[in-house]
Amino acid sequence: MTGLQIFPLPGLPEFVPGDDLAGMLAARNELEDGDVLVVTQKIVSKAEGRIVPIDTDDPRGHKTIVEEESVRVLRRRGELIISETSHGFICANAGVDLSNVEHGHAALLPVDSDRSARRIRDVVKGIAGIEIGVIISDTFGRPWRRGVTDVAIGSAGIGPILDLRGTNDSLGRELMVTEVCVVDELAAAADLVMGKSEGFGAAIIRGVPADWFRSGSIVDEIVRSPAEDLFR
Amino acid sequence: MTGLQIFPLPGLPEFVPGDDLAGMLAARNELEDGDVLVVTQKIVSKAEGRIVPIDTDDPRGHKTIVEEESVRVLRRRGELIISETSHGFICANAGVDLSNVEHGHAALLPVDSDRSARRIRDVVKGIAGIEIGVIISDTFGRPWRRGVTDVAIGSAGIGPILDLRGTNDSLGRELMVTEVCVVDELAAAADLVMGKSEGFGAAIIRGVPADWFRSGSIVDEIVRSPAEDLFR
Repeated sequence: MTGLQIFPLPGLPEFVPGDDLAGMLAARNELEDGDVLVVTQKIVSKAEGRIVPIDTDDPRGHKTIVEEESVRVLRRRGELIISETSHGFICANAGVDLSNVEHGHAALLPVDSDRSARRIRDVVKGIAGIEIGVIISDTFGRPWRRGVTDVAIGSAGIGPILDLRGTNDSLGRELMVTEVCVVDELAAAADLVMGKSEGFGAAIIRGVPADWFRSGSIVDEIVRSPAEDLFR
Repeated sequence: MTGLQIFPLPGLPEFVPGDDLAGMLAARNELEDGDVLVVTQKIVSKAEGRIVPIDTDDPRGHKTIVEEESVRVLRRRGELIISETSHGFICANAGVDLSNVEHGHAALLPVDSDRSARRIRDVVKGIAGIEIGVIISDTFGRPWRRGVTDVAIGSAGIGPILDLRGTNDSLGRELMVTEVCVVDELAAAADLVMGKSEGFGAAIIRGVPADWFRSGSIVDEIVRSPAEDLFR
C-alpha cells in the first residue's frame, strides 16, 4: 500500500530546561531513514528553557508577556491579542501558552524554531546515523475559519514548500496552484495522532516522497513578507 | 502500530457532468467501515456539472465568473480577488479554478458542499453497507503564510470540530486550546498523498478514532461568523 503512515511517539517524559531532547529522540528505535519527525513546540520550549513564571490570577501578567513576545500587535479583542512574533509568525497571544505547562508558568516559542529543528535533525543523524526531516509544530487559529490546526514553526531537512511550477495537471495544462506548504500539511497530519490532552509531544510520518527532503527554513519560505500580504 | 494510514485512490476516471461519483466511490473495494474518505472539490464539481465555459484569453471572463460566485469582495490585487462565497468561505477567486479542467472551462465550487459529502456518505452506506466519514477538500491560500494547503469545504459523518473543552492537559490543567478543526487537518493530510498533477482525486484515511464520527457540517461549524472575525 503506497501512502503515509503516521503514529505518535508514546512515553515521552515531562521535559525540563536543559533536557537533551534531541539526544532522547535520537535514541528512540522507532525512527527510520526518510521519516519526518514532528515535535510539538511545547516540549521544545520546555527543553530549551523557554518557560517563564506567571501570576495566573492576574490577567495583566499574561498580557505583559504576550506584549514582550510581540513585535507588532494586529488586533485586540478582550484578552485576545493577535500579534506578530520576532520570527514573523502571526498568531494569538504571540504563541505564549499556559496549557500543558506547570501551573504558574507559561511557555514561550523557541527563540529560533528552525534552529531547534536543525539541531534535532543533526543530533539524530550523528547518533542514529539516519537522515530525517524534522518539523516543530504549534497550534494556531486562523481568520475566517473556526477551530485551530497545527502548523510548522520550524523545519530542517524537509522542504517547506513543494513547488509544482512547470508541472502539468492531469489534462496537460500548466498548474495554477504551484506552491504547496507541505510542512503545514505534515504538521496538521501529525496533530491528528497526538491528542492535546494525552501528553504526546512527537509523531513520526513515514512514506514521504524522497524528493521532498532538502534544506530550507520556515522563516525564509513560509513567513509572508508584509509587502505581499493583503491582511495586515 | 497505532496511528493513521493515508493512501490515495488511484485510477479514478475523468469525471463529466452526470457521472455517478458517489456510486463509483461506493463500488471501490478499498473502503472499510470507519474510514474517512477525502474527495477533492474538483472531481465533485465535475460530476455535479459545476463546469462553465470561459474565454481563457480574456482575463475579464475569469473575473466576471469570480464576481458572480462572490457575495462580497474583501481584497483585490492585480488579477487576484479574495472574496466570500455563498457558503461563507473566504478564498482566492471564489474557488473558481482553471487547473485540472478541460481547456476553455472553469470549475466552480459545489453549490452545497456539505450536501455533496452527505450524498457520498449515504450512497456508500446504501451500496457497500459501511459507515464512513466524507470530506470534500479544496486548496486554499491563507494570510501571513506562503503556500497553499487543503482544507475541508464539506463534510458528513465526521465531526468538523473536536471539542476538548472540559478535558485536562497532561499536567491536569484545563486545556486552553479546546476546539480543533480536525476536518481541515484530515484534508491537509489527504493532500499529502494526492499530488495535484497526478490526477488523484480521492484518498482514504484509516485509523481515525471512533468518537470523531458524528453528524455536523462545515458551513455550520467551521465558517466563522463576521461578528466574531477580526480580519474582514
